[in-house]
Amino acid sequence: MQTIKIKPLTAEAFAPYGEVLEAAGDFRLINAGLCRRHHDRAGLDFGPAGRAGISIFKAELRSLPYAFNLIERHPDGSQAFIPMSADPFLVIVSDGPTATPHAFVTDGAQGINLRRGTWHGVLTPLGGPGLFAVIDRIGQTPNLEEYRFSESWTVTP
Amino acid sequence: MQTIKIKPLTAEAFAPYGEVLEAAGDFRLINAGLCRRHHDRAGLDFGPAGRAGISIFKAELRSLPYAFNLIERHPDGSQAFIPMSADPFLVIVSDGPTATPHAFVTDGAQGINLRRGTWHGVLTPLGGPGLFAVIDRIGQTPNLEEYRFSESWTVTP
Repeated sequence: MQTIKIKPLTAEAFAPYGEVLEAAGDFRLINAGLCRRHHDRAGLDFGPAGRAGISIFKAELRSLPYAFNLIERHPDGSQAFIPMSADPFLVIVSDGPTATPHAFVTDGAQGINLRRGTWHGVLTPLGGPGLFAVIDRIGQTPNLEEYRFSESWTVTP
Repeated sequence: MQTIKIKPLTAEAFAPYGEVLEAAGDFRLINAGLCRRHHDRAGLDFGPAGRAGISIFKAELRSLPYAFNLIERHPDGSQAFIPMSADPFLVIVSDGPTATPHAFVTDGAQGINLRRGTWHGVLTPLGGPGLFAVIDRIGQTPNLEEYRFSESWTVTP
């Protein structure tokens, strides 16, 4: 069995794939000092003929060990996942079909933005209602490539 | 004392001000049937010289009764608030400085998108970590107008 050990999600480890969206680092105080604004944290890219959209995803919960054989990517745009509950989800990314994927787990207060064209697993919440806001490209192209590994990978704690 | 009674947030009641972002209504099944995609739910508008950005807001919790005298609006772009925990927040909107504001409360599974130019109160979480993803306009203009009522409004349950 091919296994991948889960790692905590950090901005540094995730940098090759996109951004971690969390209340860390620099901020501006707004609203008379009662709110911190961590400004413009995602590298959004919707391609020449696309535009930004917000969609709501509701995904079935998964548990560990988690087996998968499918990864996908969106050649025409970035894709951000904002959890709408304070629960962890699994973030699977890959340098490509021939590479070993990486599996990160969020800490319950993190979203992510996947850079345009990044290979990734499907949405895999580990707890809560499985509810996410997704900021991605709205456009006329299919904007989807899929790859199936001949042998499944299993993500372990 | 000027008071405003809180109302539950519904798409119909909120329609003059923007969109409720929730897992309701039409969806496409994706990820081999394991995820519902409620597609492109927000009327995003970043003006001629703006672009979309994702910022993370961390706001102090408020409680009811809640008194305020400030409303604001962003003339150059829409602004969406996605709660990153399953907790309710208060949504104060107004038809303008001379109108009585409306106060809605979310059900813990709802975000909102404020149409460009909508008068609204500041971010007022009622529970949880006060953590939100905000999708709004990134640009060079101030993109902010404020109005202070001479007498405060008090939002009551």
